Amino acid sequence: MSVKRSEVRAAQQRTAQMFEQAGIVLTAAERDNIEVATFGLDNLKTQGLELITYINNDRYCAKELVLFPGQTCPEHLHPPVGADPGKLETFRCRYGKVWLYVEGEPADAIQATIPAGSEPYYTVFHEVELNPGEQYTIAPGTKHWFQASEEGAIVSEFSSTSRDEFDIFTDPNVKRIPVIEEDV
Amino acid sequence: MSVKRSEVRAAQQRTAQMFEQAGIVLTAAERDNIEVATFGLDNLKTQGLELITYINNDRYCAKELVLFPGQTCPEHLHPPVGADPGKLETFRCRYGKVWLYVEGEPADAIQATIPAGSEPYYTVFHEVELNPGEQYTIAPGTKHWFQASEEGAIVSEFSSTSRDEFDIFTDPNVKRIPVIEEDV
Repeated sequence: MSVKRSEVRAAQQRTAQMFEQAGIVLTAAERDNIEVATFGLDNLKTQGLELITYINNDRYCAKELVLFPGQTCPEHLHPPVGADPGKLETFRCRYGKVWLYVEGEPADAIQATIPAGSEPYYTVFHEVELNPGEQYTIAPGTKHWFQASEEGAIVSEFSSTSRDEFDIFTDPNVKRIPVIEEDV
Repeated sequence: MSVKRSEVRAAQQRTAQMFEQAGIVLTAAERDNIEVATFGLDNLKTQGLELITYINNDRYCAKELVLFPGQTCPEHLHPPVGADPGKLETFRCRYGKVWLYVEGEPADAIQATIPAGSEPYYTVFHEVELNPGEQYTIAPGTKHWFQASEEGAIVSEFSSTSRDEFDIFTDPNVKRIPVIEEDV
């Protein structure tokens, strides 16, 4: 199970187009290095995330996150790592609309659609809708997942240091850094 | 010596227009609370800075900085505060053009114009030009100042915790939090 290099390239191009549409300027090097997170689930249409990391040092991190229409970043949390109490992060919607789900009082009916076949791995349903200019800060160790509405979404993430490799996903099938298959 | 409330309001409106032009969306509350830093120098045309603080907690900070055409943020540094080794900050140009000056090998001829009458308070001349998509990280304790070109500039600042009240300015006339005079 893997995603093909050509599919990753197409996702990078689509992401670059969304940035352009939103008036967010990238350098050529950044455009060439857009990260496409497939989470090892091999279906970018439903679960995946595209991102640019502007800066990640031992004090803070800033990224731009892109979700294609209907795309979902699977449920996960940021645990303590050594002396670090776990990543604290602020999501600010820049473009489109995103539904963010965190621990807490669940919504009666959520607006997002849980990716088919992955229902057991979505367990928190306190809904926060973020439109452009709106933001929300997620405490360390809090389970969360998020999905873009039908227009897609761009979200600025401001946070403490990012250590993605330690993230804990609810779905045991997730691999944060999966293998990409070269096209033959 | 002080700046009038009406002048501050006009600067807020001009800032809001620049955000709109750059496609950066603010909430109504944010628009109403744009910070206009006069630095107690009472001449926003030459020295001043407009800003929105998205988030500032004990781990990280994110702001949007606006400079009107030709406007300069005066030279300063971020000292250690208690256990904090001093603010580390990354400037990312979003719109326009900004010339940033830091300690280091000085430029033969700088592109910025030092504000008239304040020449003694500008002492570092290592030039970094930032166009949209370009960024630079300033180490704690490093003197720096910056000026927008004739189109103005918007700069995203990603940083460790902000404690503006401890900033050390080269110009002894600077007051980071000055008094604003109500219009009569």
